[in-house]
Parts: sequence; structure tokens; C-alpha cells
Amino acid sequence: MHIDLNADLGETTAGNPVADDQAMLSMVSSANVATGFHAGDPHSIAATLDDAAAHGVTLGAHVAYNDPVGFGRRFMDYTPGELADETLYQIGALDALAQARGLKVRYVKPHGALYNTIVHHEAHARAVIDGIKAFDRNLAVMLLPGGVAVDIAEQAGLRVIREAFADRGYNPDGTLVSRREPNAVMHDPDAVAERVLQVASTGAVTAVDGTEVNVQAESVCVHGDSPGSVELTRRVVEKLRADNITIASVL
Amino acid sequence: MHIDLNADLGETTAGNPVADDQAMLSMVSSANVATGFHAGDPHSIAATLDDAAAHGVTLGAHVAYNDPVGFGRRFMDYTPGELADETLYQIGALDALAQARGLKVRYVKPHGALYNTIVHHEAHARAVIDGIKAFDRNLAVMLLPGGVAVDIAEQAGLRVIREAFADRGYNPDGTLVSRREPNAVMHDPDAVAERVLQVASTGAVTAVDGTEVNVQAESVCVHGDSPGSVELTRRVVEKLRADNITIASVL
Amino acid sequence: MHIDLNADLGETTAGNPVADDQAMLSMVSSANVATGFHAGDPHSIAATLDDAAAHGVTLGAHVAYNDPVGFGRRFMDYTPGELADETLYQIGALDALAQARGLKVRYVKPHGALYNTIVHHEAHARAVIDGIKAFDRNLAVMLLPGGVAVDIAEQAGLRVIREAFADRGYNPDGTLVSRREPNAVMHDPDAVAERVLQVASTGAVTAVDGTEVNVQAESVCVHGDSPGSVELTRRVVEKLRADNITIASVL
Amino acid sequence: MHIDLNADLGETTAGNPVADDQAMLSMVSSANVATGFHAGDPHSIAATLDDAAAHGVTLGAHVAYNDPVGFGRRFMDYTPGELADETLYQIGALDALAQARGLKVRYVKPHGALYNTIVHHEAHARAVIDGIKAFDRNLAVMLLPGGVAVDIAEQAGLRVIREAFADRGYNPDGTLVSRREPNAVMHDPDAVAERVLQVASTGAVTAVDGTEVNVQAESVCVHGDSPGSVELTRRVVEKLRADNITIASVL
Repeated sequence: MHIDLNADLGETTAGNPVADDQAMLSMVSSANVATGFHAGDPHSIAATLDDAAAHGVTLGAHVAYNDPVGFGRRFMDYTPGELADETLYQIGALDALAQARGLKVRYVKPHGALYNTIVHHEAHARAVIDGIKAFDRNLAVMLLPGGVAVDIAEQAGLRVIREAFADRGYNPDGTLVSRREPNAVMHDPDAVAERVLQVASTGAVTAVDGTEVNVQAESVCVHGDSPGSVELTRRVVEKLRADNITIASVL
Repeated sequence: MHIDLNADLGETTAGNPVADDQAMLSMVSSANVATGFHAGDPHSIAATLDDAAAHGVTLGAHVAYNDPVGFGRRFMDYTPGELADETLYQIGALDALAQARGLKVRYVKPHGALYNTIVHHEAHARAVIDGIKAFDRNLAVMLLPGGVAVDIAEQAGLRVIREAFADRGYNPDGTLVSRREPNAVMHDPDAVAERVLQVASTGAVTAVDGTEVNVQAESVCVHGDSPGSVELTRRVVEKLRADNITIASVL
Repeated sequence: MHIDLNADLGETTAGNPVADDQAMLSMVSSANVATGFHAGDPHSIAATLDDAAAHGVTLGAHVAYNDPVGFGRRFMDYTPGELADETLYQIGALDALAQARGLKVRYVKPHGALYNTIVHHEAHARAVIDGIKAFDRNLAVMLLPGGVAVDIAEQAGLRVIREAFADRGYNPDGTLVSRREPNAVMHDPDAVAERVLQVASTGAVTAVDGTEVNVQAESVCVHGDSPGSVELTRRVVEKLRADNITIASVL
Repeated sequence: MHIDLNADLGETTAGNPVADDQAMLSMVSSANVATGFHAGDPHSIAATLDDAAAHGVTLGAHVAYNDPVGFGRRFMDYTPGELADETLYQIGALDALAQARGLKVRYVKPHGALYNTIVHHEAHARAVIDGIKAFDRNLAVMLLPGGVAVDIAEQAGLRVIREAFADRGYNPDGTLVSRREPNAVMHDPDAVAERVLQVASTGAVTAVDGTEVNVQAESVCVHGDSPGSVELTRRVVEKLRADNITIASVL
């Protein structure tokens, strides 16, 4: 049995790291690396890519709205043409930094507000997919299961990697519990590890009311932006190893 | 006989054009297209690339210091690592936009303060060349003749395109007359056309004191950022055609 | 009889002017000057303020979403706290540049997407008004008549200046004809001058179907971002003078 | 006996804090708060100002070159007019946020590359002082002792606050030991506390070779950008209290 663990990395801005990229790259199989639009700059991104190459991690482009002040967390009302061209620009920039280190962008994962918007916003979903295809039709795309972006990507012939979240509460309909509600985030390492095991074996998650929801997830997102989150990931990884589950990219 | 005419394009920012890109692309053989660091954004750059593709113009990446407020005209004291990675990022981003339109970045021309700095600043010159080589060792680089960047590029095995300026006064040592002095800029279309003809036939320019200086130029830079400059270029192009001189990229 | 003419100025970015600020400042009574968030930078803004001071023009802060790439024309999903603090920041920055020239910010006019959003978006409307009040409760605010921002501003005790547009078509309900439809923009100088005269005498505009709509406008927005628009304004100004209508701020 | 402790705060960017502002504001007497040019955004800066107001801390504007990617640590070759207007813009923006909280900018401390540049770069030093004076001639300016900026500021009639660094090694000529050399940074809490006591009692520091250098310092800069630095400051503060030295702004 195997599972892909992915993390958001390369978000060091102005010399100030957000996550412990080195620690995370020693544990995950896929890295969603920032492109400079919500965080990161070419030189700090390159440092993360050096470490990703050293650890043989599969590389994804973490594309975002151009909003460094808001860390890409605010919806911006782009035209489709703007969004497609910005997506393409970001992938190309990151891939150039990567190829110089023997890496290659293998998939794209939208970030923050863009990730959430294209679950329901068809024009933006289509624009992101257009931007990806314009770069390389063989790129995969990592998405939240169940949104319009998944349908558009699959109709466009792209390989979709559905992801689950290691430490987020799920509603019975497969959506995430809002961060404004209790149960939004799980803090117990055993529960988090259990979640990852469940995804690895069935692709499903158990919702807050006990319902099992089949999100068909192939990858699990883990966080590395606090000492606690790095340690939590470490314990999950140990538990997976103890259960003989291989951590590996699906690409 | 033939000559390459190049122009700085793709500098439309926030919807406000700097040059008449369409008019210029119908006349020049090489376009130095902005990458978003001193001007342009992915979508406006893409529009210029569409036109460049339609006119079969050879594409150069107009890389710059990351200073949109200053239009890339202010020296910034980057570390070499920062500058190499920013150069690579810019080329990759522009090339992705270009490849989606059947174009390809064929050369790199540093812009503004970066262009002038690497005439004498060895660390920055080396960083730019490192960034170019990291993308593709077959890229050419367009430079002011006579600076350290030319030597470093040639030692690195890059094809150097030395350029002359259509409408700038030259000192007898081959440097440009400072814009603070009279004779810095030539406004007479006949004199400008004469300059282009001279470069086409000999690679040399005549300095303000009448000295002929052999700058070994293969390309001539023309401007398109005012109605007058577009019209000036038009008259130069007509004169070149009348003299049976072909306008063509050297690549 | 008198009328206030206002124009959007100070939008020169990276040395590239959008409008002919000097020409416009010799004609209008109120200048909506950019603050650097959608356009302009401190030094170019200061140059416009020098000219505004020389012409005795009343100064407004043209506050915007922080989106220089999109020229402030794209909605951004700020939290109210972010928007209030960004509004306050922008007014303070512009007022500092102004006070050094003997000017003072007298009113605030939201720009672009922000201007249109607060017609209906109550949280953003309230945030903008909060930001204005936090700077100075005696500032006026220039708004499109009929939106929620007008009500919130008046309830907050701010002086509201309702504005009309010199060259835009109006629907019978007082909204502007969409730019995607014919009749969106008026190009005939006589019709434009007639519009200004009508506002000056009645505060009303005539809609595209002939209905007279009382928008209670005290100010008319004119444009200066093309040679044609400057010339159009000049003809309007001449016509107003010929009719003995004084061009003057209401503040 | 008393001493002013100052710290660089308000540098939270895109939601990611650089220092523990709350902890530091409970200990220092003066806060150099970022203005959004090297770090911080209006809303995060406002949160720091709320805390500064709650602790009765004296407020300084931490003005910088406009280089968020480089955290203001890279020299930028501004014209004097650009730098003066950017200085004025930053002070005005911060002061507006501050006045809404009952605070006021009382002094200006240049940040990073700007701080170091104006020790020797006369045109930039003069531009910064011009920008400060244009806002308010009663503002003080906090500077490294011994540079041209000190002379220019004093000739301009500004109150200069010379500062020393709590944890930096000094050369016998009063300059700081380069970070590339050993002895650049002191890590021993007792040595750091001793330094602060020395400045409080004599205004002098002891250089790495044992020489006592009279830098006439009235303020000591402490750091809060790591758990270790906050703890170090705490121990210094305890030692000052034990020695009955009051921590207070000189303004």
C-alpha cells in the first residue's frame, strides 16, 4: 500500500520562512512550490528546489492570484485571459528554475483563494486548466474532489490528483468544515495518522458525524508551517512506516 | 546586405501602453519583450507575443531588475545568486507564454539599469550570463559592445549580438553620449537612416567628433514609444528598402 | 451658476503618463489624485500635486484596491479591516505629499472596482467610510448617486458629493449604460457640454431613452487620458464659460 | 539613570510575523514600525500600532527603499527627489494609521540598506532628511552615530537620536563588525546587558579590542525576530530593572 503526502513549500518571502522546508522535504513525496505570486521569490524558491531535488521529491507548481500582500488568500476578479496567462507564466518560471536543478514541474496545484474559487467558478476553473494545457498537456493537476475544476480538467484530458487534508474536519457532503466552526482542524496525531491510513487504503475520509465519504483521494496534504505541524507530520510518517505504507508520488 | 532592427516591446502596464507594439512589430526583425519585472504583465505580454508571432519576429527576453515603480532604470544591489535566479525565472516565464504561441525565446537583452550595470559590474554580468546558461546554452545575448558582459558571455560560449543605437550620439571611445549633454539624441531621420546603413555595411558608427568607431554591431535598436519615434522608424525602414538592405534577425 | 469638474489624475506609473495632467489641471476644479495603489508613485504623484497647487485645484484622494497590475479595476475580496486600514493609509500618504505643497486632501473618491463595488457591497462601503472617518470626519466623499455607500456615508455624517459623468450614457434608473452596449459613451462635444450644463442647472441627466433622471449631481467627471478627451474637455470648458457658468469646487 | 530601548516591529507580511511584536512592545520604550515598503501591510501594521498604543510606546517610522522582495536590504539607486517623496509618503501613511489610535509618529529611523547607505551617501542622506522635514520639522531621526546623515540632520535642525546595538560587535572606530567576521554578534545575555548598562551610563560601547568608543548613544536597538532574541531582551530588561535603570524614550 502507498500514499502520496504533499506540502505547500517555497513560501519564504523577504528572507522570512513560512514553513520548515528542509524538514518537510525529508518526509513528503510531493512539494507544491510557490511561484512568487502569493509568496516566495526566485532565489528563495530555488533554495527549496535544491532541497527538493536532493530528496527526490515530485514537483508541483503552486499557482496563485497575484496578491503577495494577501498571501493569495483573497479572491480577485480576473478575466479568463488574464488568469490563463498568469497560470502559464507561473508554471514556466518555476519550471525554468527546476530544470536547472534536474527537476521538472510534474503537476499544478492552485493555491489559497484560487484553489477554493475554482471549486465553483467555472470561468476561472477553465482559465487555470487552459493555462496548464498551454504549458504541457501531460501535466497533472491536484484539486479538491467534487468541484467544477475536476470535471473541466478531466474533460480536457488532464490527469487529476484528488487530494484530502490530513488534519481538516469534513462535512458529510465531502466539503471541509469551515475554519469558523469547531472541528475544523484535528490536532490529535493519532487521529491524523488514522485519516492518512484511511485515505491510503480506501480513498475515503470519515466526516465529523461519522459518515464515511469517498473523496477518491490519492494524495494527502500535510502542513509544515509551525513547529507543531512539522512534529505532527513526523509522527504520521512514523506511523505509516510502521504499517508498511510507502510514501510515494502517484506520478 | 542585411541588418537586424530590434525594439523594446511588451511594456504595457495596467492597460496603459508605452509603445505602439503593433506598428513596431510590422517593421523590426527582433523584439525585446518585457517579462513583468520592469513592465508588462503576463496578459499584456501575451498580446505582444501574439503580434510578434503573426509578424515572424525573432523573440528576445528583456530581463530586468525587479523594479516596476522605477521601470527597471535604477541599479539594485542584488547578490549574484538572486540575480541569476531572477534572470532564469524571467526567461522561463516569457518562454512559456511564447511557446504557447509557437514562438521561442532566442536571445536575452538586459534592460535599463541592468543593461548599463553589466558593462562594468563583473559580478552582475556573470550572474546574468549564469542565469541565461541555466536556461539554455544556445540562447544568444544582446549587449552593448565593449563591456565586461561581452567578455564573460563569450568566454561562457554564448553567441553575443553587439548592438548599436539608431538615434544616440557616440563618443569617440564607443560609449554613448550622456543624455545630460547635447548631441545625446539624433532627431534627423536622414542622419538616423545613415547610421543604420553604416552599421549594416561596416558594423561601425560615426562618433560626434567625426571619428569612425568600429563597434562590430550586428543589430540596431530603434524606439517605438512616441508617435515621432514610430514615424522615424518608418522612414528608416523605407530608406533601407530603397537601398535593398534586408531587415532580418541574425539568429 | 457653477459646476464642479473633476478628473482622475496622478496615474503616471514608471515614468509613463496615463493622462495629460497639466492640461487637465488648467481646466478642472477638483483633482482625484492616485495614491500609488492602482497607479502613480510618490514622486510622480508629487509632480501632479505641484501642478494642482499652482492651479488652485481642490484635492481628492483617489483610493483603490492594491492592484497595480490590474489598475485597480478588479474586485478583491478584502476583509473590512484590511480595506479600512488601506483606505486610511492611502489618504495619509497622499495628504503628507500634499501638505508639503500647501495643499490638503479635502475629499475621497474611490477608484475603479472599489468605486463600483461599494454601490452594492455594504461591508466594503462601510470599511471605506470607516477609513475616511478615521483620518478626518470633515473629509467629503465623492460617490455614484444611489448606492449603499451614499447612505452609509450620510449616516456617518460625511458630506457626500454625488457625481455625474460627462460622457457616459445613463439608463432610466440612473445607472450607467454598460460599456458592452452601444450608447455607453458619448463622443459629441456639444452633447457632452449639454450634459454638463444640465447637471449645473438641475443636478439631473437625460437617459438614453429621453427620461430625465435626477441624480442630484454636484460634480461632473471628465477624462484626460487621450488627446481626444483633453480636447473634448477644452470645448466643454469653453462652452461653460460662454454660458457664464463658473467651474468651482463645492468644498 | 534611564535608557531607551528600540526594536524593529510591524514587519508581518502576508500574515506571517517576523518578530513577536506583542512580547517586544511589553518591554521596549520605542518601536520602529514598518511602513509597507520593506515589510508590513496597512492592516498588519495597524495591529502592531494597537499594541504600541496599549503599551504607551513611542512611535518611529521605519522608512525603507521600496523593495519588499529584498526586505529593504538592497541599495537602490533612487534620485533624491524620488527618495524624499517616498520618505514623506511613508511617514504620512504610518502617521494616519497611528493618529487613528491616539498615537503619533515621533521620530524616523531608516531601515536596512537605507540606514547603512546614508552613513556615507550624501545625496540619499539629504533626501531622507528633506522628506522628514517636509512632514514635520519637530520629528526626531534615529541614526547610526558618525555618518553624514547625522551632520545633515543636525544642520537641518532635527533632533538626532544616536543609537547603539545591544548585541553587535564594534570596531575601535565605532563601526559595526561585519557579519562576515567572528565577533559580529554577541550571544551572551550578560555581555549584552552589560552593553546596555554601559550605554545608559556613558553613551559609549566597548569595541572588540577592548577600546571604549564614545558613540554618544541615547538608545539601544534590541531584536525580537527569534525566540532566542525575545528571551535575550527579557533578561536584559530584568537586569536593567535590578539596577534601577528606567527604560524610557528620550522624546
